[in-house]
Amino acid sequence: MISTTCLNNNSKTFDENCLAADISELRVDEGNVIWADVTDPTSRDFEELAEEFGFHHLSIEDCQNEHQRPKVEEYSGYYFIVLYEAELTGPHDRLELRELNIFLGKNYLVTVHSRPIRAIETAKRLWHEWTDRSDQGAGLLAYLLIDAIVDDYLPLLDLVSERMDDLEDSIFGEWRAESIEEIFSIKKKLLYLRRAITPLRDVFNTLLRREQPIFPRETHVYFQDVFDHLIRVADTIDTLRDMLGSTMDAYLSVSGNRMNKVMKRLTSISTILMSVTLIAGIYGMNFTLMPELRWRYGYVYALFSMVVVGLALYVYLKKVKWI
Amino acid sequence: MISTTCLNNNSKTFDENCLAADISELRVDEGNVIWADVTDPTSRDFEELAEEFGFHHLSIEDCQNEHQRPKVEEYSGYYFIVLYEAELTGPHDRLELRELNIFLGKNYLVTVHSRPIRAIETAKRLWHEWTDRSDQGAGLLAYLLIDAIVDDYLPLLDLVSERMDDLEDSIFGEWRAESIEEIFSIKKKLLYLRRAITPLRDVFNTLLRREQPIFPRETHVYFQDVFDHLIRVADTIDTLRDMLGSTMDAYLSVSGNRMNKVMKRLTSISTILMSVTLIAGIYGMNFTLMPELRWRYGYVYALFSMVVVGLALYVYLKKVKWI
Amino acid sequence: MISTTCLNNNSKTFDENCLAADISELRVDEGNVIWADVTDPTSRDFEELAEEFGFHHLSIEDCQNEHQRPKVEEYSGYYFIVLYEAELTGPHDRLELRELNIFLGKNYLVTVHSRPIRAIETAKRLWHEWTDRSDQGAGLLAYLLIDAIVDDYLPLLDLVSERMDDLEDSIFGEWRAESIEEIFSIKKKLLYLRRAITPLRDVFNTLLRREQPIFPRETHVYFQDVFDHLIRVADTIDTLRDMLGSTMDAYLSVSGNRMNKVMKRLTSISTILMSVTLIAGIYGMNFTLMPELRWRYGYVYALFSMVVVGLALYVYLKKVKWI
Amino acid sequence: MISTTCLNNNSKTFDENCLAADISELRVDEGNVIWADVTDPTSRDFEELAEEFGFHHLSIEDCQNEHQRPKVEEYSGYYFIVLYEAELTGPHDRLELRELNIFLGKNYLVTVHSRPIRAIETAKRLWHEWTDRSDQGAGLLAYLLIDAIVDDYLPLLDLVSERMDDLEDSIFGEWRAESIEEIFSIKKKLLYLRRAITPLRDVFNTLLRREQPIFPRETHVYFQDVFDHLIRVADTIDTLRDMLGSTMDAYLSVSGNRMNKVMKRLTSISTILMSVTLIAGIYGMNFTLMPELRWRYGYVYALFSMVVVGLALYVYLKKVKWI
Amino acid sequence: MISTTCLNNNSKTFDENCLAADISELRVDEGNVIWADVTDPTSRDFEELAEEFGFHHLSIEDCQNEHQRPKVEEYSGYYFIVLYEAELTGPHDRLELRELNIFLGKNYLVTVHSRPIRAIETAKRLWHEWTDRSDQGAGLLAYLLIDAIVDDYLPLLDLVSERMDDLEDSIFGEWRAESIEEIFSIKKKLLYLRRAITPLRDVFNTLLRREQPIFPRETHVYFQDVFDHLIRVADTIDTLRDMLGSTMDAYLSVSGNRMNKVMKRLTSISTILMSVTLIAGIYGMNFTLMPELRWRYGYVYALFSMVVVGLALYVYLKKVKWI
Repeated sequence: MISTTCLNNNSKTFDENCLAADISELRVDEGNVIWADVTDPTSRDFEELAEEFGFHHLSIEDCQNEHQRPKVEEYSGYYFIVLYEAELTGPHDRLELRELNIFLGKNYLVTVHSRPIRAIETAKRLWHEWTDRSDQGAGLLAYLLIDAIVDDYLPLLDLVSERMDDLEDSIFGEWRAESIEEIFSIKKKLLYLRRAITPLRDVFNTLLRREQPIFPRETHVYFQDVFDHLIRVADTIDTLRDMLGSTMDAYLSVSGNRMNKVMKRLTSISTILMSVTLIAGIYGMNFTLMPELRWRYGYVYALFSMVVVGLALYVYLKKVKWI
Repeated sequence: MISTTCLNNNSKTFDENCLAADISELRVDEGNVIWADVTDPTSRDFEELAEEFGFHHLSIEDCQNEHQRPKVEEYSGYYFIVLYEAELTGPHDRLELRELNIFLGKNYLVTVHSRPIRAIETAKRLWHEWTDRSDQGAGLLAYLLIDAIVDDYLPLLDLVSERMDDLEDSIFGEWRAESIEEIFSIKKKLLYLRRAITPLRDVFNTLLRREQPIFPRETHVYFQDVFDHLIRVADTIDTLRDMLGSTMDAYLSVSGNRMNKVMKRLTSISTILMSVTLIAGIYGMNFTLMPELRWRYGYVYALFSMVVVGLALYVYLKKVKWI
Repeated sequence: MISTTCLNNNSKTFDENCLAADISELRVDEGNVIWADVTDPTSRDFEELAEEFGFHHLSIEDCQNEHQRPKVEEYSGYYFIVLYEAELTGPHDRLELRELNIFLGKNYLVTVHSRPIRAIETAKRLWHEWTDRSDQGAGLLAYLLIDAIVDDYLPLLDLVSERMDDLEDSIFGEWRAESIEEIFSIKKKLLYLRRAITPLRDVFNTLLRREQPIFPRETHVYFQDVFDHLIRVADTIDTLRDMLGSTMDAYLSVSGNRMNKVMKRLTSISTILMSVTLIAGIYGMNFTLMPELRWRYGYVYALFSMVVVGLALYVYLKKVKWI
Repeated sequence: MISTTCLNNNSKTFDENCLAADISELRVDEGNVIWADVTDPTSRDFEELAEEFGFHHLSIEDCQNEHQRPKVEEYSGYYFIVLYEAELTGPHDRLELRELNIFLGKNYLVTVHSRPIRAIETAKRLWHEWTDRSDQGAGLLAYLLIDAIVDDYLPLLDLVSERMDDLEDSIFGEWRAESIEEIFSIKKKLLYLRRAITPLRDVFNTLLRREQPIFPRETHVYFQDVFDHLIRVADTIDTLRDMLGSTMDAYLSVSGNRMNKVMKRLTSISTILMSVTLIAGIYGMNFTLMPELRWRYGYVYALFSMVVVGLALYVYLKKVKWI
Repeated sequence: MISTTCLNNNSKTFDENCLAADISELRVDEGNVIWADVTDPTSRDFEELAEEFGFHHLSIEDCQNEHQRPKVEEYSGYYFIVLYEAELTGPHDRLELRELNIFLGKNYLVTVHSRPIRAIETAKRLWHEWTDRSDQGAGLLAYLLIDAIVDDYLPLLDLVSERMDDLEDSIFGEWRAESIEEIFSIKKKLLYLRRAITPLRDVFNTLLRREQPIFPRETHVYFQDVFDHLIRVADTIDTLRDMLGSTMDAYLSVSGNRMNKVMKRLTSISTILMSVTLIAGIYGMNFTLMPELRWRYGYVYALFSMVVVGLALYVYLKKVKWI
């Protein structure tokens, strides 16, 4: 489904429901900025797009095949951009990455996606508010959209960071064997997020260093801003990964310490029980001449010495912190 | 065996069975695109190739020696390309890498290989379909062939990825000691795949940044596409390697946890059995004056106290999750 | 709250309490250097700043949103700099990073921060002392401020380094399980410090290599000096991180060794007690014909042999260092 | 000892035993290519070389001090190259690296070495065979020599690779504690090989990218070939190192698994023996009223119950794979 | 204390005890090369230096603050160099790094240090010997000094390497728990050495690639030589670090193996002693009808069966290498 909005920069008016067929006509007037948002595209839609805007068949193919890597490709007259909106959903905080394909021309923006993208709403709202700046063409519109997507990564990373703080507390506190599964699950999330962001950072870096014939100089500062946010997201991800590595190390060390403790406890218990059993064993010997056996309180004395030996060992082992 | 196909761009006709001897003649007409596919080459074939196309003896030597690293080398008038087709074969999913040598000239493509290459069939089919674009010379043909090879890596990596998901489930679920062998085997596969792809990515990067006198500008966008796929494959491999590292770490941690559990169980069982044995030991002592020994239900009482002590310890150890 | 100081380079006099409203007037005279220090800024303050100095709305936004990454951004006519002052506070040496935003123009410096920054006092003092050099404009002033912040990292790192020496001694000496928590806490501190410094180093490197139209050549050597200090801080952090990694490794090894020791002790104690118990068990057998049982000193002999066996094993195990 | 061979490119004749004293005379004729091979050089030889060819005293000093790092240095009029021939010798496959110093001028090659270098024989033979190409001067000769050395690394690496396959089999098969020593020894070998190759790769990369006034364009393709082989060797070394790391990880995991197994066995054996002993202990108690004691087949019954309990536990533990 | 030596290149004569006050005069004659060596400098000395040579106050400040990082800074008319002489001192081979500050101008060299530097003696001696080359000004003198310092790292690294060989032997041979402390101590030494060398290597790399207005082309080859030695030292340090990492891994593996052995021994001893005790336990039972108890050699038979069972188990466990 193609829904097309057109902003006339001269009259500052929005035409919300342009017909796809009118696009080529609207594009003639340089004062117009056109945003065609294609949801759940059919092959018919792709043909129409290719025809109206003259997109290269390779970029159309990339658009049709899902799971492209995030990228910015330059074709003659337009940029083809692939990026991912990220969200944690469901009870287990599954990470959902929603692909968004963008065709960015001098005065048009075409967005293609099969699942709903929240950032499109945000960008559309801001676009209507920022009309005083909108004479800068489709570049500013692209900025609003991409920035909305990139900025959405930060609260998500804050959430991950909170999880990690909990995890860390649990490792040094009430130890749980399941922590390792959580560490593993966060590690995977960070890996996917990183994969969705880092390529964009590198491409934007190249774009900003290059001559840009399509957009005017004033738009450049906005792309600089997106780049800055991309670096910030990428840096945060790297920091979180680094800290997760430390958490993992801490987990292993604490796990080792706990093993040590278990071993000490085993040794302690063995020592105590074996010593006490030895006394019982001694008085279980069958020598005819064992004075204690005939003592009136021999039995009590034996039990007593068992308790004494047991307690003494217990106190000692408690003191050296083996129990 | 050399099998030569020639496309005449003017008449859009294919001549499937040209004679090797006619190649030099056919090459004169710039409208012709020649594809010479050499299977299981003899030294006689190499001589013929060197003679017909004027290949440098160093590139011929590389062609003769197997196990070259993947590369793109520029000789005067042609590129010499080495790449590998990948396939998982046999019951144990052995990774097979089949070497393909390509000589790519302005209007000819020579492919040399000792084992059958699936991508050659794919490329040949598409070549016959795409005749409307084939005026772009041998460059487009090379694109079809290389892209077919590179794209074949992706389903293979999906398979590896599935294996890894199973592995991961098994590590956190029904733990098997053999998992480590599987991790190791996947690691090796990824290492070989990476070795077959990464050098190509780097070389294509250099090629795309350089001035290219051999191919027209329109072909450039196709090589950009191959490069994009190469990056995607390389990125996927790196991500899988990264995740395999995490899986390995998880395996080690889980393994450590299991050790911990075994130790706790050992300690628990020792504690219970030793305690109960101690009671038996006590009533095995030979004191003349041990009231319990004469009790009517002394024996029952002893057995009962054993059961009580044993159960009490068991319940306690169950509660603290040592058993 | 905006507090503005103005230095007139001709008369070498400071005007401590300029009105914000006069700034645009003062800026006309090129001999004036203006420092506007904005503490705990209100949105009213931001509007004033944007108006007086003509700051881009994106840099103002960055200023309003806390937790920016450290950076130097070039806008037309001024630099926007974000950096962090570091301090260890409280009984647990919590690391506090205080954000400082700097707008640096040809002859003005605007500092924006919500928490008090010690380095501002230092810089202000030096500014008043260095009047003989102050004809170099706002660049020198920026140097004084940034250098004060960067130099404050070094004593803090010395403190961290001392902690690590203690930690290391404790690991090889009186081993404590808590060391791992300390290692982890230092690791996090270093990670945050590194994150606050490394981006600045990279940006300064770029700045120093670039053409700098805003500041004269003589100021360049001062920025070179700041860059040198940034490298030194970053290098020290990296060295400390490297050493902390070694400390962690040492901790794990020592921990492994201690486990080994515990195991040996367990084996030793089991061996001794089981052997001695065996003797008791032997003389607890009920054979009718056991000569020792009738010996006059049979019991003493049995006890004696227990002690001898026990001591012999103890001496032996002591010799091979298992106890 | 200096042995000098001179090839006259015009007459295509070799003069095998030129006198060192004639070198300066021979060098005048540009058609001559001179190879002076200096074995086990004396300080007299060095003086002669410095005099005849005008080598800089720093390169002569490098030549005299052994254990230089592999390098290519450009002096005015000649290159000074240091590289290492590698061989596995002796029963324990000790790695021997033999240093070779090369002075490479426009039409001369001086090789200096204290130990015999196999590649010199190979290069000399090929030189005599390739006379039809030898008008390309000393560059081609250098190619033959360096390529012979670099190519010799590959069979050696194949050997190392085979060792590693054996090692890997042994780790997953009949486990040996000594494997770790072998891993360590291979690791060291790879480290030394890498150190001998990687610097050369980097230097050749720089050389190939630079303007090369000494050698004609046609020689360039040969150096490209050497570079390609260097990359291949370096890549193989890196792959082997990577795989050795995996092998090490596998060793540790398998070692951990074995520990786990030993622990389980200990627990199993303790459980069985302690349980059975408990039964014996129970019937060793001295209660006056213990019906079983008076049973006719009490003893048999006791022994039987011991066997039953022991067997039951054994079967159970076998089923859960603890034994 | 400033001690100044002046070499007149025309007369080739040294004036050993110039007065500091004459320096500015001596500098006028371009044929003079002046070396001012400042030991244990006072603030008076620094003032004098600043005055005579016109050093920038920032470089003087760096000189006064110890613990600068190794660096080469370019000021107008001179280089400011900081490097460290390394020595192992004392019974525990403590690593001592002695800071040396160098101001290097066209025809003067100023060295500032608070502790005695051995390399200064070496350089002074060579300077007096090399008068025939000294017309190349202060650059050659700087080469002599820096090269003396850098070359001194190599024997020190040889010493470290020997220690590591010993360590490695001890790990695979007579295992000592203390090895870990030694590994740790060497690791720290290598870290400090690396920190003292690597920055210099990078700076020299930049210097050699740059245009150098201060020194003539002939001096360049000497700096190239210093750079080569720096790389060699840095490479050696990296190789040693790499090998130390392997040693650490080997230590951990061997330590794990030893743990495994201890566990096996514990299991073995438990098995033997428990089995034998079980026999004693059996004959300790109080059944009225136990035929063996009445046998004449029952006791002997029991002891004998204990020995047989014990020996059998011992032999078996010896065979499977558990004891």
